[in-house]
Amino acid sequence: MRNSELYFQEKISHLSFSKESLLIVDKNILSLLPVDFLKSFPFTYAVDAGETLKELSQFSNHMNNIMEIWNTSISREHSIVALGGGSVGDFAGFVASVFKRGVKLIHCPSTWLAAIDSAHGGKTALNVQGFKNQIGTFYAAEKVFIFKELLLQQPAERAVEGLGELVKMSLLEHPSFLFELVEEPNKTSEEILWQHLEKAIQAKYKIVQQDPYETKGLRKILNFGHTLGHVLEGHFKTPHGESVLQGLFFALEWSHQRGDLSSSTYERILAVFKELKLTSWLTSKTYQAIPQKTAVEFLSKDKKINSDASMDFIFIRDLGDVFVQKASVGEILSEALRQGWCQP
Amino acid sequence: MRNSELYFQEKISHLSFSKESLLIVDKNILSLLPVDFLKSFPFTYAVDAGETLKELSQFSNHMNNIMEIWNTSISREHSIVALGGGSVGDFAGFVASVFKRGVKLIHCPSTWLAAIDSAHGGKTALNVQGFKNQIGTFYAAEKVFIFKELLLQQPAERAVEGLGELVKMSLLEHPSFLFELVEEPNKTSEEILWQHLEKAIQAKYKIVQQDPYETKGLRKILNFGHTLGHVLEGHFKTPHGESVLQGLFFALEWSHQRGDLSSSTYERILAVFKELKLTSWLTSKTYQAIPQKTAVEFLSKDKKINSDASMDFIFIRDLGDVFVQKASVGEILSEALRQGWCQP
Repeated sequence: MRNSELYFQEKISHLSFSKESLLIVDKNILSLLPVDFLKSFPFTYAVDAGETLKELSQFSNHMNNIMEIWNTSISREHSIVALGGGSVGDFAGFVASVFKRGVKLIHCPSTWLAAIDSAHGGKTALNVQGFKNQIGTFYAAEKVFIFKELLLQQPAERAVEGLGELVKMSLLEHPSFLFELVEEPNKTSEEILWQHLEKAIQAKYKIVQQDPYETKGLRKILNFGHTLGHVLEGHFKTPHGESVLQGLFFALEWSHQRGDLSSSTYERILAVFKELKLTSWLTSKTYQAIPQKTAVEFLSKDKKINSDASMDFIFIRDLGDVFVQKASVGEILSEALRQGWCQP
Repeated sequence: MRNSELYFQEKISHLSFSKESLLIVDKNILSLLPVDFLKSFPFTYAVDAGETLKELSQFSNHMNNIMEIWNTSISREHSIVALGGGSVGDFAGFVASVFKRGVKLIHCPSTWLAAIDSAHGGKTALNVQGFKNQIGTFYAAEKVFIFKELLLQQPAERAVEGLGELVKMSLLEHPSFLFELVEEPNKTSEEILWQHLEKAIQAKYKIVQQDPYETKGLRKILNFGHTLGHVLEGHFKTPHGESVLQGLFFALEWSHQRGDLSSSTYERILAVFKELKLTSWLTSKTYQAIPQKTAVEFLSKDKKINSDASMDFIFIRDLGDVFVQKASVGEILSEALRQGWCQP
């Protein structure tokens, strides 16, 4: 899998896409886009973003619609341009990877989360009856265009979620990266994100290149925070960024509790989280404790589960030093119980 | 894409598949399989073979069923074993390629056509509203098991179709291969197929390896005979082998008519076809002439179509020497008219 070509642009600009590209775009951001830009696409399929878009039961209808719009003489040389957040990218990426056994794919992420994470590394995904990402392919975008103007139109809440993914990458990448995020005081979340976006993306590419198809276990560390995250997302339908951020706290707390992560490092990490206002944001959310049966069901459908019903959980030992270790579903449940996520 | 490991076996034997493999099997051949063999699979999904199995509109239901059967702790280490003809292989291969972003795949082709062609080279496919193979992936089987005992249980008609694919490969491969097929007189179709199966498969792997993802045009020659073939298959719902064999005649006749193929070579090829009883078999079939509009519709949905509405047609110059040349849809229609396939 090759890395995508990256383009960082201040403004949403008229791009020289092939005349026969299909734009798959989030309906809600249509009004944010310059008319000229939209006009440059002869074929447009506007979708309702969100997890419903990714439901497999809807896929056949979407393909019928797409083939009605984008029908004549389409071959594998043509491109699908995905303009939206993670769900639009996952969906459009999957379409691109299987239509005619693969057409070209260009991502234009409209959310911080997509810009920092899901637009890169080639994972596409659909859900099956609410179970996340049960269906998918590895299919890298040829190009990724990141328009600052577009990202800045997101609600502040979404930038906080983006920060969660940025923090995750910084914890994976290098001992100093986390502290770089708070080097300059009084910056907005958006400013911090834009400033560190490219570094975080390159860090992801570095990991992906070592294990592009997730066969060696190396790529698994990108799932840091995702085990509990996917349970929350499945059960509460909370946004991905919020879920993963909670999952990140869960993994940090568990690593500390097990003695993998020293108290001093744990405190230093939490201090950065606090400075980034992630702690106050997360504690403002309330959740009902999850029935254990429900948690088990979501865990057992997670792609990280092994044949002996253990899971590859990502723990942290130090800044820039995470590791994968098998944890039984029972152990994960006990910890979830201890941290108050599950019902006793 | 790596080549699949090939296993040729006289008998259907108990194989040491992983304990958690899912067998996807054609319902109609269940009764032909030894009980011990079937029992060795803890999870079995029996399907109705045929193009309906490949309809995208049914895919979500199939995945729901599969996830109910094969649910607990399935990860990407597990295998799907596809036991059936081309439609079962195309379907099960697609499932394997996208479930959990790809589980392992093992093919056990039950038809001559699948054994010689579709089980090899990694093409998986679904249809969209009757349009063939609009959705698919490139996903090679790890292993292909070919059981002679199973293939011999096919009706004689299916062996003739297999011969069509064998003849196609022989015309692509080497000037002498075609004549080897008729070296020993009075052999049955089945005997000829079994004897030359491995050579034909290796010839296919040689071509696939030069262009695994069909990006260089080299792999396109495997579509020899498929342009008209796909139109017939789409319109008349004739079996794939029969359709491609008619398409092969069409391409030979056109190549001769254009002066690419000398009359003497053309006659020598036809003599072999006659000796293999392909000619008499094909002339026993009757078809209504196809409305031109319908033919255009099927041609325009063919994956070999280019953005200028021309198609990459495979012509033949000599034995073992085919070539790809652009032909407009209009030219293909004129030739189909001349050969009596289309309505004036």
